[in-house]
Formats: sequence, C-alpha cells, structure tokens
Amino acid sequence: MIRFEEAYALVLSRVVTIQKPERVLLLESLHRVLAEDIVSDINMPPFRKSAVDGFACRMSDLRMPLKIVETIAAGSLPTMQVEPGTCAKIMTGAPIPLGADCVLPVEDTRLADDLYVEFTGMEAKKNICELGEDIRIGDVSINKGIIIGPQHIAIMAALGYHQPLVATQPRVGILPTGDELVEPNIKPLGGQIRNSNGYQLVAQTKAAGALPSYYGIVSDSKDATYEVLAKAIAENEVVTLTGGVSMGDYDYVPEIMEKLGVTIHFSSVAVQPGKPTTFGTLDNKLVFGLPGNPVSAFIQFELLVKPAIRKLMGCKQLNPTAIRLPLAEDYRRNRAERMALVPVKIIAGSAVLPVEFHGSAHIFALGNADGIIAVPIGTTKIDKGEIVDVRPL
Amino acid sequence: MIRFEEAYALVLSRVVTIQKPERVLLLESLHRVLAEDIVSDINMPPFRKSAVDGFACRMSDLRMPLKIVETIAAGSLPTMQVEPGTCAKIMTGAPIPLGADCVLPVEDTRLADDLYVEFTGMEAKKNICELGEDIRIGDVSINKGIIIGPQHIAIMAALGYHQPLVATQPRVGILPTGDELVEPNIKPLGGQIRNSNGYQLVAQTKAAGALPSYYGIVSDSKDATYEVLAKAIAENEVVTLTGGVSMGDYDYVPEIMEKLGVTIHFSSVAVQPGKPTTFGTLDNKLVFGLPGNPVSAFIQFELLVKPAIRKLMGCKQLNPTAIRLPLAEDYRRNRAERMALVPVKIIAGSAVLPVEFHGSAHIFALGNADGIIAVPIGTTKIDKGEIVDVRPL
Repeated sequence: MIRFEEAYALVLSRVVTIQKPERVLLLESLHRVLAEDIVSDINMPPFRKSAVDGFACRMSDLRMPLKIVETIAAGSLPTMQVEPGTCAKIMTGAPIPLGADCVLPVEDTRLADDLYVEFTGMEAKKNICELGEDIRIGDVSINKGIIIGPQHIAIMAALGYHQPLVATQPRVGILPTGDELVEPNIKPLGGQIRNSNGYQLVAQTKAAGALPSYYGIVSDSKDATYEVLAKAIAENEVVTLTGGVSMGDYDYVPEIMEKLGVTIHFSSVAVQPGKPTTFGTLDNKLVFGLPGNPVSAFIQFELLVKPAIRKLMGCKQLNPTAIRLPLAEDYRRNRAERMALVPVKIIAGSAVLPVEFHGSAHIFALGNADGIIAVPIGTTKIDKGEIVDVRPL
Repeated sequence: MIRFEEAYALVLSRVVTIQKPERVLLLESLHRVLAEDIVSDINMPPFRKSAVDGFACRMSDLRMPLKIVETIAAGSLPTMQVEPGTCAKIMTGAPIPLGADCVLPVEDTRLADDLYVEFTGMEAKKNICELGEDIRIGDVSINKGIIIGPQHIAIMAALGYHQPLVATQPRVGILPTGDELVEPNIKPLGGQIRNSNGYQLVAQTKAAGALPSYYGIVSDSKDATYEVLAKAIAENEVVTLTGGVSMGDYDYVPEIMEKLGVTIHFSSVAVQPGKPTTFGTLDNKLVFGLPGNPVSAFIQFELLVKPAIRKLMGCKQLNPTAIRLPLAEDYRRNRAERMALVPVKIIAGSAVLPVEFHGSAHIFALGNADGIIAVPIGTTKIDKGEIVDVRPL
C-alpha cells in the first residue's frame, strides 16, 4: 500500500503524449485544450485615440484660453498639429493629433467664443488610449495549455485564430467487470446490481475532455477479461476497468493485466474509499484498475485518472482550483491509517458540510456533493470552523 | 437607466417556458437540465447485511461465550435464528440472521474452541447495514432542475433511468451588427475590427446549455437589420444582437426592435461596463440588444442572458455559486453612479486580484480572469483583505 501522493506522482510520471495536436474550427474549440500560444497580429487600439469627447491640447497650456483649430470625428484623421495655445475638438475614439498630450473632457470646459475654449476642471487627466495599450503585435495573449472557455474564443476571434491548434482528445476505454452487473434498463434481481460504473466513467471521461469508448459489461471470467482488455489497450491511450481488483476469488484483474504484459506500478493506495486501486502501463498506454464500489471508482477517477488525461493533452492545470472554506460541523473518524476522501456540500458559498455517507457503495451520497475534501493520514478530527481545501466536482 | 437588480428581475419575469422536455439516452444527458425527479425503484442495500467479517449475535449476550450455529457466506441465506447464547459466523455483505442485532468484528473475538467464540473488544458496535439505508423504494434521489453531472449519471444508471427526461435546449439567435466588423480569418484594415462578439456569444450560449444559431455579421442598414432580426425572432426562443444600441447615428437596433413589435422593457442599465444593454419581448421571445464592446457584451450575457436561458430550461440554479474570497489589493474608483463589474483572477484559491483592465473594448483582459466581482452603486473603494463575492466564469 502506497500513499496517495506517491501514487499520484507515479501516474503522472508515466504520462507520455504521443498524439499530435490538431486544428479545429474556432467554434469547435470550446472546452478543448489549447496547443499553441495565441499571438497578436494587431495593435489594439490601432492608433492613439481619445477616450472622451473633448479638446485635444498640451497639458502645459491649461491655464490659457485655447484656440480651436479643427474638429476630428471618429473615423477621420487630424490635418493639423496642435501648437502651443491651440487645441482640436475631438470625438471619443478619434485619433489624437500630433503635439497633443491630453484631452480635456467637454464637461470640464467652457467655450469662450466660437474660436476659444477654457479649461474649468480641477485637474487634467490624459484621457488618451495609447496605441497598443490593450495588446501589441507579437504579444502573447493566451499561453497554450489552458482549457478554452468562451472568453478565450473571443480573444482568438479578435486575433484571427479561426482554426486554433488544440490537443487531440485521448481515447479512454471503459470496462466495468462483474457477473452481478445488469445494464440500467434491467430491474436487478437477487444479488444483481445495476451497472452504474460504466456510465459514470463515460460521463467523467467526457467531462475530463477525452473520448470514451464503452466496452460493455465484462463477465467474471479470465478469458473474457483477457480478450476485452487486450482489445481496449490496443484501441485507446487510457483504459479503465472497474471491479475485480480486491481479494475475492473473482478479483483477477491485476493477474490478467500482468499476463498481457502490463507493468503494475501499484495495486493498493492508502485512501478511503478507493484502497484497491491498481495502476499499470504497457508501452505508453495507461491502465487503471479501479474498485468496483461506485463511490471509490468515482473519486479515484477524479483524483488519479482525470489529471493523467489532462496531462496527456498538455493541459497546465491538472486539477481544479481548490476553494478554501470553513467546515460547518465537526468531522471525526476513529481510524486514520488512510487518507479519507469525504464528499461535501458547499452551503451558500461560505462553508462546507460533509454529506451523509455510508461508505463506498453509497453512490446516492454524491448526488448532493459539490466537492471532496481530503483528510490526511493521522488526522482523526477537523473542528467546525477550521479551513479546508475543497476540490470542486 | 435602471438598476441592475431591476433589469435582472424584469428579464426573469418575462421568461415563459413553452418547449416540452424530451427524453434522451442516459449518456447524452450529461450537462443537460434534468426535467423529472429521479425516484428509486429499489432498496439499497436490498437486505440487512453485515458491514464486517465476524459473528452475528445479540448485543445483550456479549459477556458470555457464544455458540457458533452456522456460517453465512456473501450470497447465501441464513438458515437459523440467533437464539440467546448463540451466534452465526458471517461474511461482509451477507444477510443478517433473524434474532441478531450486532456483528462482532473477527479481530475483536477469540475462538474458545471450534464451537464457541468470545468477545474481546472494548465496546460493541452494530456493524449492520440496514435494509434501504442508502436508498428506499420511492425515495427521491435527485430533484429535477439540476444540471446533470457525472455523479448524477451514476445515480440515474443505478436507479434504471436509461432515458431520462431533460429540458429541451432553447435556440439562441446570434446577430453581431456593424459595418466595421470583419470575420476572424480576415486581417482588419483601417477602422475595421474582427468580429469577436459573434463567436463569443456562440461559445457562451453553448456553455449555458442552449443551442446557438449564428446569423453572420449584420451590416449597419435599417433594412438588413430588420430582415435578419425578424427571421431570428421567428426561429429562436432567445435573440441576442451586439452593437447598434448606443447613441450614434447607426445605433438603430432599439428602433428596429420596436418596428418589429418588440416591447422594450429597458434600454439602459446602471452597470459598467454594459450600460446601453437593451431588453425586449415579442410574445414569449426574449430579445437582448447587447453593447458592441466585447467585454460589455460578454459580461451582460453572463449576468442577464445566461440566467434567462437557465430559467427557460427549468434549471433551479440560475447563477453559479459565488465564492467568497478576500481582495488581494485595494480597489478604488472615482465615480460610483453605476455598479462596476470587475474581472478578477483567483490566486491559488485564497484571494482575488482585479485584472488589468482598460475598459469595455479590452477583451484581452478576460483571458486571465477567473471570475467577476460586482461593486455596488455608491461604493468607491474596497480595501485589501475585504471579503468579496466572486462569480466564477
């Protein structure tokens, strides 16, 4: 049994990206991982322009009436230079004439007559948007490795990236194992339970930005497991099995993995739930044997598989940003040999409450959970009010 | 000019859902809005079962040696009742025999001989998973109105919802206006700028869970605007235009809206950026005239259009949960007649920093933003360390 931190480092150390990035249409790039830096081909603003309607002049001339030499509309060009004692009437967005170093807002001025204007304000501000103050040619606006959101789509559109380069989505094979499983459309009888793991992993894979391939329920037979696992390893960059990894008579997933040539790096992690999590590699393929209990499988996918998928795509942020919040009630546990992973609910953004949770089969507990907190090995209690790091779901 | 809170209430008061919900395959339901309660058709656990390997007995018999009357494996049924002074050897997950009210863990017992066992622990716990303690037939596990995440997919699979009922996605027509716009694949010349609003709104619409229809750049002509807007209103539940809503000569979007029979509810909101935001309705169609400045359009879509889309889908959570974090540096502004909407960056989950932001054309500022904070009317300063509500992007 190894510590979670070790397991996590081991998984990430085995991630080798072999897929080449691909170009997609801008609108297809939402939620993909950006695989190139977004560099500006323009200056914004493209010229020095006025931020207000007013009078462009020299800051040193404010105490004298200024002669208005021309009017510059938005979209037109100045024809004169601003000399000492003169100014140009100017509209918001219009180019600043040579010689001017500020614009007096119209509300801070008074016309002396048709030809002269006086400053009536307290202090003069520049009121000029400098050429390229938002962005300059050659500036990197977005670094590669981010997950593309709507705001990045806007920036890529503004900078002409109509076919951005994005990471190719890794394929993730999903193999729930167990003779007790029936598909969701079947009413379970006797010792049967519905296959929730397969569907959950497909959804988690999609949410992680990868492409799921669902192989159906694999029966508890060595031959069947061998055959399907071999096929899944050949067809995907990542393979996740659930079930068959504990100590029972039918738990031969690690054995089959080895028979297929998979090097097993660990088969037990000091976490609760999720202890019998197994991880191996074959060439650059990553194979995860997750526990059959749905909550264990869910949490270990989030904590170990998702960061691996993100790293495969060159994503810089492997895990969601933790939110630091106080605990809304005391947390207690009797034993602390393993790191506990506790589903929690966020209460109005200001505190977190562990959700009622009967153990690793209690998938219904996750319906109310907004996040997970990790309670370290050796810690048996966290008091109400103590700050915890919540990993959002 | 109305306050943001009024504008928000007005928009939501006009939302009428006319689309019927639809059934989709379970795996297609990820990120859709659930339109039915998820009710259990099973008890989990389906019977009273042991939580440990040990001996099922009566709590009142702990101080005497107990006679072992049978062994109950997982998957097999008890054949005897536990009488005073007796117990049954039992495996984790096996059904509890009648008469027993606790299970002594094997590690807290000692075999007296082949037939008798003694309790050696300090205090006895029940160690029984009660029938239906995770969920019972008829329990509502998930209430309708949530956005379906992977954990909900797992629960729906477990409860047999292989074709859940989800809200139909509203269609959102997207019409960027302005003769200065060129599509992203064109290098802008002179006064041209690339159309970022159209792409941004398509991406925001997708991220909000609706179906975007992009109508292309609409030129600054009353006839063109009239024609495209009429078509978009006919074909969508929501229409968003950008540009043409200020006071310039070519800003006739509100006029065209009225000519088409759209009732305008407001055309100016006390927010910065985003003041010239216009909202109208025609029957149950919602029409938003958003500002042409990209940051204004982005923020007003997030704050006004997205909650309307979510309400159209019957989603209970109209806005993302705010995160309460301290400000990492002083915030100051000179004027406070409008509510300021300030893009901020979250620093390692523990504080927020306003991003460098030159105003409503500065779309590049959003590339580094993780959220938005609202500074109320009348507030000119927030000191470093004060707690603010961050709306995540």
